[in-house]
Amino acid sequence: MKSDIEIARSVELKKIKEVAQSIGMPYEEIENYGRYIAKVPEDLLDEEKLKKSKLILVTAITATKAGIGKTTVSIGLALGLNKIGKKAIVALREPSLGPCFGMKGGAAGGGYAQVLPMEKINLHFTGDFHAITSAHNMIAALLDNYLYQNQSKGFGLKEILWRRVIDVNDRSLRSIVVGLGPKSNGITQESGFDITPASEIMAILCLSKDNVDLRRRIENILLGFTYDDKPFTVKDLGVAGAITVLLKDAIHPNLVQTTENTPAFVHGGPFANIAHGCNSILATKMAMTYGDYVVTEAGFGADLGAEKFYNIKCRKSGLQPCLTVIVATAQGLKMHGGVSLDRIAEPNMEGLSEGLRNLDKHIRNLRSFGQTVIVAFNRFATDTDEEMELLREHCAELGVGFTINSAFAEGGEGAVDMARLVVDTIEKQPSKPLHFTYKEEDSVQQKIEKVASQIYGASVITYSSIARNRIKLIEKMGITHYPICIAKTQYSFSADPKIYGAVDNFEFHIKDIVINNGAEMIVAIAGEILRMPGLPKDPQALHIDIVDGEIEGLS
Amino acid sequence: MKSDIEIARSVELKKIKEVAQSIGMPYEEIENYGRYIAKVPEDLLDEEKLKKSKLILVTAITATKAGIGKTTVSIGLALGLNKIGKKAIVALREPSLGPCFGMKGGAAGGGYAQVLPMEKINLHFTGDFHAITSAHNMIAALLDNYLYQNQSKGFGLKEILWRRVIDVNDRSLRSIVVGLGPKSNGITQESGFDITPASEIMAILCLSKDNVDLRRRIENILLGFTYDDKPFTVKDLGVAGAITVLLKDAIHPNLVQTTENTPAFVHGGPFANIAHGCNSILATKMAMTYGDYVVTEAGFGADLGAEKFYNIKCRKSGLQPCLTVIVATAQGLKMHGGVSLDRIAEPNMEGLSEGLRNLDKHIRNLRSFGQTVIVAFNRFATDTDEEMELLREHCAELGVGFTINSAFAEGGEGAVDMARLVVDTIEKQPSKPLHFTYKEEDSVQQKIEKVASQIYGASVITYSSIARNRIKLIEKMGITHYPICIAKTQYSFSADPKIYGAVDNFEFHIKDIVINNGAEMIVAIAGEILRMPGLPKDPQALHIDIVDGEIEGLS
Repeated sequence: MKSDIEIARSVELKKIKEVAQSIGMPYEEIENYGRYIAKVPEDLLDEEKLKKSKLILVTAITATKAGIGKTTVSIGLALGLNKIGKKAIVALREPSLGPCFGMKGGAAGGGYAQVLPMEKINLHFTGDFHAITSAHNMIAALLDNYLYQNQSKGFGLKEILWRRVIDVNDRSLRSIVVGLGPKSNGITQESGFDITPASEIMAILCLSKDNVDLRRRIENILLGFTYDDKPFTVKDLGVAGAITVLLKDAIHPNLVQTTENTPAFVHGGPFANIAHGCNSILATKMAMTYGDYVVTEAGFGADLGAEKFYNIKCRKSGLQPCLTVIVATAQGLKMHGGVSLDRIAEPNMEGLSEGLRNLDKHIRNLRSFGQTVIVAFNRFATDTDEEMELLREHCAELGVGFTINSAFAEGGEGAVDMARLVVDTIEKQPSKPLHFTYKEEDSVQQKIEKVASQIYGASVITYSSIARNRIKLIEKMGITHYPICIAKTQYSFSADPKIYGAVDNFEFHIKDIVINNGAEMIVAIAGEILRMPGLPKDPQALHIDIVDGEIEGLS
Repeated sequence: MKSDIEIARSVELKKIKEVAQSIGMPYEEIENYGRYIAKVPEDLLDEEKLKKSKLILVTAITATKAGIGKTTVSIGLALGLNKIGKKAIVALREPSLGPCFGMKGGAAGGGYAQVLPMEKINLHFTGDFHAITSAHNMIAALLDNYLYQNQSKGFGLKEILWRRVIDVNDRSLRSIVVGLGPKSNGITQESGFDITPASEIMAILCLSKDNVDLRRRIENILLGFTYDDKPFTVKDLGVAGAITVLLKDAIHPNLVQTTENTPAFVHGGPFANIAHGCNSILATKMAMTYGDYVVTEAGFGADLGAEKFYNIKCRKSGLQPCLTVIVATAQGLKMHGGVSLDRIAEPNMEGLSEGLRNLDKHIRNLRSFGQTVIVAFNRFATDTDEEMELLREHCAELGVGFTINSAFAEGGEGAVDMARLVVDTIEKQPSKPLHFTYKEEDSVQQKIEKVASQIYGASVITYSSIARNRIKLIEKMGITHYPICIAKTQYSFSADPKIYGAVDNFEFHIKDIVINNGAEMIVAIAGEILRMPGLPKDPQALHIDIVDGEIEGLS
């Protein structure tokens, strides 16, 4: 089979205005970024029209280093739906340059189920991440400057909460000291960089209703506390307007196309382990304005992305998914069944069977939200018929739909069965209205404890004294109604990345709490989760190149 | 008079494809970034055609805090030339977000002589600066990762030369310590951030002939020295391909339009005090391929931008300017004549007359390159007839052309006289072939000393021991043939920003030397020049906002 990049290059792309026209979008109003990418102005969104659209969430079993292929299945499902005559649009997140040049080498789907032009999407795209990075760091510089210029007046902050961000995997920047050298180099203090997908501004962009809401949220960003314990915000700094200006274009959803020239929105990109893991509300709603079926995804396993999709994104936007598709692979299930990474490509019925416990727990969780669930088996060449049969039987026992996705190898044609099952299930047995895990009026601890116990399976939840103090502050600030966003490893239901499978009755420790007052959520940090990844021993950057004018090494 | 942004908004922009078509560019081959901006692929450049084009450099007297208006005159001249029936294109640098949100609030010309859409040009534009920032910091992360991953093998560098960059004025990042915390946070070491216009990659982008040359130069970037004193480059790191991929689009020149819908290239943006201060060779050559007259500028005073334009950009590209226009303002001259900033708007013939010494010295310098020079007086509303008459007479005495530019207030109509004088002067008395200040084969010290004594007027040149050691290294590396790029204050001929006017016979101290092995130049740092600016007490960011959907505070 051809490589991802060879397939991407073999596709004859349609001009993006034609793609827009194909879904009835007033194509003169979109703004081209090159021939094949456009930004869609927010005023093309229609709140009435989108209510008729059917939203489908694609999530996955717990992540493994082998990769599950959620993006490929999402794109494949949209391709399959279009194949059977449905007007379907996929709405995904934008890739971050960090993992592109680090572990993953890209995040635009794979095989014959990709979003294109994949090189542009994987690289700078329409500059949204760069705009977010600039906006975030501009606030940092303006804050430090304010402290520097006003130190002679005795003004200072007791605590500074705002760090910096960069869209590169750079472990050396996790913990730094700034302002060294002469006094004119600013105030010496601790700081550090997170990766751009962890920026509160990324979350704000993804959760904003429009430009006005964006500005309001930027004003509310909490930067620190004064010596008399008052919150100090971007509004106090007086620069909300300037920061909104930096994000003026970034907030508009990006339109691209799939390997079969169907429309796709790719917009926003918070990670699901350290952030809320969903593409922008604006992009999802824009897709729903123009598509009868909209397929979207949420990052990593269903304990992370899907939980946050329902409890944060849907709660805040009013979106109601009709169906949730959970992606599983035989290799991934075998890993969760205790098979080592180097042996997962071999048939192993026992390992597979043991690994089903991970799938089952996710399905139970998804059902707890009132969702109808189907399992999409993402097929690899090494999978045996026996393995697939086991899975099919298991799903039948659970009473959930089962389908095999071959979109990677066959494009939309390989996803026709999946598309038919999806349409059929939505018709006969749509999801119930969302039942959230916690209520707005629950206390912060109640929210954390409900997610940790009901979704993760923890039996004891403990808090550091830092976390306990933060919760008191949150109560004092009167913002306990915000949803919570738990930051934890993607490799386990627990906070320990080494515990695969379906673990239960563990202790879950909240180390720290970050107040995202602009994004209006409370980030609870569990375990040793890093908001800035490092590069591996053999980074993908070593394999990315231009050969005869063509890019190699992205997928 | 209307504000810059009001004027910008009142202009009915042409679609950028129409602008391209108006100069005979195959408009189907350009790539839109929105309706009014395009990237022009490098293969549209024609080395034969461009030889027939007449290149004009616009430079200025020594910079003052009042601003001289070089960009406005450059755009005005192009407008005036088009008004009198000449096919003229202006080629400028891209603004940096740092000064936009700090002191200046933008750099896209002013009044009725602007490049448009000015908000986009002043903000993220086509993402070139962001691509450069990413490429630079990706190298930093990959280098630190290489050192981290290979420390157990005993590999290390004796000295690391590569810092990081960010396009924000952030004094706190000038001097930092990275890699604090647990061992997994990388190796603890000193580092720091320069502003993006100071990145060697910015210089490389501006000096590269094409994508192949770009890649070659990236390979050559010197990152540090091993314990056995061997240079360690990006090639040794094995990531030149990946870094070139990040710059694949950024290297293509950006096409925009002026307030009178004539074409303009805006591409690359090194500062002239800390870097070489010229827009990209590719953009200048592209403009010359399609324009009979091309107006370009070089940053700050003629001692910085113009000197580097001739000795670096023209030497390396083979470009030969037909004429140099030096911009002066009455207010600027009065400042150089010792009048204090708060009184320069008042008539003061004595101060003006005294300030002419600054202009004279620049004219002498420009003539030393074999250039024909004309003085463009950039008119302000407060200037008196008597002041203008003094300048006119003075120029007549010197035998240099004199013209008054009113393009700020009147657009092209206000630059017709200037345009006529330019055309006439080029016809009757074009510049001689460039006479460079130093030869390639001169030693590093000879090069520094020739520029410092012949252009700046220094009588004694001293070196720190660091600088002397670097020169020895440069000799050992066999790269003494590179041109030198002196980094010094823009406010004085000397390295002391407080000495206005025309100072002579001073001591000039070289503090440090930076080897730009990819850009192929040697940066000699004189005095307390900062490669990362700070924000002022009242940053422009406080005045930038969106009001009724329109951006305020940029110019």
